[in-house]
Amino acid sequence: MSTVAALVTPSAGAAFERSTIERRDVGEHDVLIDIAFAGICHSDIHQAREEWGTAIFPMVPGHEIAGIVAEVGPGVTRYRVGDRVGIGCFVDSCRECENCLAGEEQFCLKGNVATYNGRQYSGEETYGGYSKQIVADENYVLGIPEGISLDVAAPLLCAGITTYSPLKHWGAGPGKKVAIVGMGGLGHMGVKIAHALGAEVTVLSQTLSKHDDGLRLGADDYFATSDPQTFKTNRKRFDLIINTVSADLDLDRYLSMLTLNGSMVFVGLPENAQTFRVFSLIAGRRSLAGSNIGGIRETQEMLDFCAEHGLGSEIEVISADQVGEAYDRVVKSDVRYRFVIDTSTI
Amino acid sequence: MSTVAALVTPSAGAAFERSTIERRDVGEHDVLIDIAFAGICHSDIHQAREEWGTAIFPMVPGHEIAGIVAEVGPGVTRYRVGDRVGIGCFVDSCRECENCLAGEEQFCLKGNVATYNGRQYSGEETYGGYSKQIVADENYVLGIPEGISLDVAAPLLCAGITTYSPLKHWGAGPGKKVAIVGMGGLGHMGVKIAHALGAEVTVLSQTLSKHDDGLRLGADDYFATSDPQTFKTNRKRFDLIINTVSADLDLDRYLSMLTLNGSMVFVGLPENAQTFRVFSLIAGRRSLAGSNIGGIRETQEMLDFCAEHGLGSEIEVISADQVGEAYDRVVKSDVRYRFVIDTSTI
Repeated sequence: MSTVAALVTPSAGAAFERSTIERRDVGEHDVLIDIAFAGICHSDIHQAREEWGTAIFPMVPGHEIAGIVAEVGPGVTRYRVGDRVGIGCFVDSCRECENCLAGEEQFCLKGNVATYNGRQYSGEETYGGYSKQIVADENYVLGIPEGISLDVAAPLLCAGITTYSPLKHWGAGPGKKVAIVGMGGLGHMGVKIAHALGAEVTVLSQTLSKHDDGLRLGADDYFATSDPQTFKTNRKRFDLIINTVSADLDLDRYLSMLTLNGSMVFVGLPENAQTFRVFSLIAGRRSLAGSNIGGIRETQEMLDFCAEHGLGSEIEVISADQVGEAYDRVVKSDVRYRFVIDTSTI
Repeated sequence: MSTVAALVTPSAGAAFERSTIERRDVGEHDVLIDIAFAGICHSDIHQAREEWGTAIFPMVPGHEIAGIVAEVGPGVTRYRVGDRVGIGCFVDSCRECENCLAGEEQFCLKGNVATYNGRQYSGEETYGGYSKQIVADENYVLGIPEGISLDVAAPLLCAGITTYSPLKHWGAGPGKKVAIVGMGGLGHMGVKIAHALGAEVTVLSQTLSKHDDGLRLGADDYFATSDPQTFKTNRKRFDLIINTVSADLDLDRYLSMLTLNGSMVFVGLPENAQTFRVFSLIAGRRSLAGSNIGGIRETQEMLDFCAEHGLGSEIEVISADQVGEAYDRVVKSDVRYRFVIDTSTI
């Protein structure tokens, strides 16, 4: 075991404190990573505030991790000391179920091991990226290609894959019209990736306050959903709507913007049950669907794609002292577009 | 114009009367059909009772029509006098929009012309199959292959295509596990077609009262949804659930039976808005979707498929006098599995 500096929240909603945690020894197939940056995902806040059911405390959030390999176990073949690497939302899975075997570890039938606020199969608690080092099995470590700096790469490990995976699965590309609902941490990556995939991209945001950013990041069009005209103007327009917001939406109005065979895909998790009229689906063979991050293979593919297209997250780098304030700003949607903790300040 | 005997309901919910309607002269591209049988679809009842918004009266329902060509216009090339033919839910569409051009006339962007309770683009009211003859453009007339008798073919024009189309669209076939919710006019055809397509078929019905029929028609398994154990036993089992019932369902329980990437497809139209938790979708990249009959090309494909596999509807042939009683029995789900009117009794 080794003792590692970390930002710890001792109980639900409590302030973060500089403290230490124990990391396991580097095993046969493990990689020790010196963490350089950790993104702040809205789900960190939900879990640190215990808004998503019982959580494990003390907690060290963070599943958007980028750093450098500091040590490798004797059986490690994929990484060497000095490699640029990342860790996303999970650090292990059963490796045996049909979903794991298909490279869809995010849907592991046994349940994968969350990067924090989870337990290893051995029972040991997991601690995330708001810390100086982490130890993980090499099979759950991603390579960060040259050409993306580690700070803008960190958010790709969750926000990037969460939008890339459904865009790929539902065929975003040339000739396809994609709408991204919400222009936040997920949404702004959705815009960049959908544009790089060759789709026509429209942002649907509550207001036009981020209009110029949207166009700069690759959107072809930008509409305010507070304006009822938006739903008329875009009637039957989109092949795919990626909904990144957790607010309750009038789904029938959104479904009316889908073309024949169009899909509206949730990547956020609204607190409340959602309501729709079946006619909205039947009227155009439309679908409502959900997508959840991505598997290891696809996450690597996303990182390679982002490097090739020069895509990273738009970030605001903060120090360990600013995490509490950053949480409050994320809740108010006051960030363009992702906070990333410089873990050297922990 | 020609005067044709028909079963007419003069106003919402009123009893059917033997009366007459006017049919247009046989035009250049028209076919005159001597109707032999007309199926009774639940949607006939909704419309005759004006339960689906304002309806046009007097009304002659019926969009499951089978008969023999009696006369053809000079420009007709697809049919000859004596051919066995059918008409389904619509008798015209704009023929110009992208959906019509793609053979998806059921989603015509101008709105297709419903077989009854609709209006031709010229404004003329349409009257359906509860009559002795009908005139229609040859492009909206289907050929009924030898090997299916006209009585069991009639319901294929709606119940058959309504289940065939989503089964094909969502890839039902060998290696796929399909559940059919509801064992009525639509559901029993879903069982037959899914089985003939090579899928493993499970019926999910409120009770086990039609269990033996289900297995006889091709189901591999049959469960009662009144038993909570059904949802546990079949957790993450199905690739596709076709929901043929219009009752409100606990969608989260049904979604929990879908495997990774599974879809639950509505082909009925519940009166009320439906509710679901987004987690039920995200937990397995699942979809909720809707499907609406099928296009002309696919309807012909379905008829050819049914003939090849010896599939027809399970029917109870009735006379014109029994339509009122049949309506009451359909509402009580007391029919195995489709009433078909012998139009020679009109």
